[in-house]
Amino acid sequence: LVLIFRFFPREFSFIALFKEQVTHSVAASALLKELALKGVVDHYNLERIHHIEHEGDDVAHKIIDQLNKSFITPFDREDILSLAKKIDDIVDTLDAIISRLNIYKINRIDNNLVQFSMVIDESVKAIAIAVSGLNNTKNSKAIKEACIEVNRLENVGDAMRDTFLGNLFETENNPIELIKWKEIYQDAETVLDICEDVANIVESIMVKHS
Amino acid sequence: LVLIFRFFPREFSFIALFKEQVTHSVAASALLKELALKGVVDHYNLERIHHIEHEGDDVAHKIIDQLNKSFITPFDREDILSLAKKIDDIVDTLDAIISRLNIYKINRIDNNLVQFSMVIDESVKAIAIAVSGLNNTKNSKAIKEACIEVNRLENVGDAMRDTFLGNLFETENNPIELIKWKEIYQDAETVLDICEDVANIVESIMVKHS
Amino acid sequence: LVLIFRFFPREFSFIALFKEQVTHSVAASALLKELALKGVVDHYNLERIHHIEHEGDDVAHKIIDQLNKSFITPFDREDILSLAKKIDDIVDTLDAIISRLNIYKINRIDNNLVQFSMVIDESVKAIAIAVSGLNNTKNSKAIKEACIEVNRLENVGDAMRDTFLGNLFETENNPIELIKWKEIYQDAETVLDICEDVANIVESIMVKHS
Repeated sequence: LVLIFRFFPREFSFIALFKEQVTHSVAASALLKELALKGVVDHYNLERIHHIEHEGDDVAHKIIDQLNKSFITPFDREDILSLAKKIDDIVDTLDAIISRLNIYKINRIDNNLVQFSMVIDESVKAIAIAVSGLNNTKNSKAIKEACIEVNRLENVGDAMRDTFLGNLFETENNPIELIKWKEIYQDAETVLDICEDVANIVESIMVKHS
Repeated sequence: LVLIFRFFPREFSFIALFKEQVTHSVAASALLKELALKGVVDHYNLERIHHIEHEGDDVAHKIIDQLNKSFITPFDREDILSLAKKIDDIVDTLDAIISRLNIYKINRIDNNLVQFSMVIDESVKAIAIAVSGLNNTKNSKAIKEACIEVNRLENVGDAMRDTFLGNLFETENNPIELIKWKEIYQDAETVLDICEDVANIVESIMVKHS
Repeated sequence: LVLIFRFFPREFSFIALFKEQVTHSVAASALLKELALKGVVDHYNLERIHHIEHEGDDVAHKIIDQLNKSFITPFDREDILSLAKKIDDIVDTLDAIISRLNIYKINRIDNNLVQFSMVIDESVKAIAIAVSGLNNTKNSKAIKEACIEVNRLENVGDAMRDTFLGNLFETENNPIELIKWKEIYQDAETVLDICEDVANIVESIMVKHS
């Protein structure tokens, strides 16, 4: 009985921490979408994304600390570690994009980034469903569907990046503007790659426990 | 006896899958060489590399699925996972280079990339020898030689990238052309880095089983 | 008693190798600082950094070989592997920066890189303290302080990169010069990110053994 009390809180607390961690990813992608639609990043919103990034970082550190102190974990140790790091990478990359928009003094976010921000927001929401569902094997169908959606959106993002880069190199004569947007589009696509990595880890965890 | 029958098919099937996976790497590097010599990437060949990339991806997923379902593996689990991911990265990066040549509308591939494509092709062929040889400890000498060759070619690639970038920055006055080729040369060198990572994993597996 | 004799040499030899490995990181960051203050990279110093990089590489290979041959390790196997790779990445990235300064024919290193080189040098020295301290639990306070310092310097580096990039995009009208310095500043910041990764691994090892 004592053992049961020791084990279960740990299981549930890992998943609770992951749930908390993905809320910061969801907040960050919602903010990117909001700012893309607004068209500009001001100092107030720069502080907001940095704040979200710090909070996400704190949860990632909590997960890794708990992992290091736990003998028994609900999933394989390396899956917990990879999951915590990759979810952290989502917020980090979103923070990098929003910071770049500010540093590069971009005062009219283009429609391409608006489209990217919508796809990213959908993907991150699907990630939240997949990660939060890990507490119950009943969720396996919903998790699987969410992971398929993340993979689909990664392909959408690949095609968007290729189209946007192609247009950029064809129409942008100012090389300094080209450098800015090339980096921003590539970072936006990277967010979708990281979401796919997260989905792959979640799927691995599912397969091991099926 | 039952256990023996359970174990061996698994061992052989992992190596069979890796053998299959590297055939896609070999096909991708042969295609880059073919296109570099031809001088241009058309839509038909763009579809070909995407097709190879998808097939390689499927094998990588099969390996990871089988890994997640197996209690007993021929090598350490983390080596199998890293090997599958890194071999996948070879094709992904080759696909990225060929896609860029198309997106950037490069209609005359330069001699530098021809040279890179030949070194990459040699390195990927050596990787195929090393990975395919893992089914038999008798191959250890051939594997070791292939890994040494991959390391040598990575150094060749480093020197090529440095020379080509130096020339590019000295002679290319059009910054947009410079941006295109800088990325292509750096990605080409990255393929050789990834091949070296694969060789290092193969060598680790060898040392653990010697 | 035999067991004790078997265990301890192994423990100490891993830590001795890590100590040796970080001396190469310290040498590389000291060289970057020296060259940044001098203002230019000549062939003699290019050979020096390549030499340091090769020596660091040799130690990393020794650590991985010993890991592959050891059944008992002082820390978790994956921590030893990550630590060896990440410390290797420090020297590799410093080598890449110094090589770029030469390839891009930069004959007046700017004050921004001087500042970066000083922060990097401090961070790498803190890494050396943290890594070398792993041989004795008595060092835990000093290790913890060194890791906090590395984290602080990573934040300093982030702010420096953002400021320097902002100024660069505002004042540099020559896109080719902008491309060069953008890459150099970003690589400099990457060194501090890698140092933070090293500090995180050291902290994980500490938590597991406390």
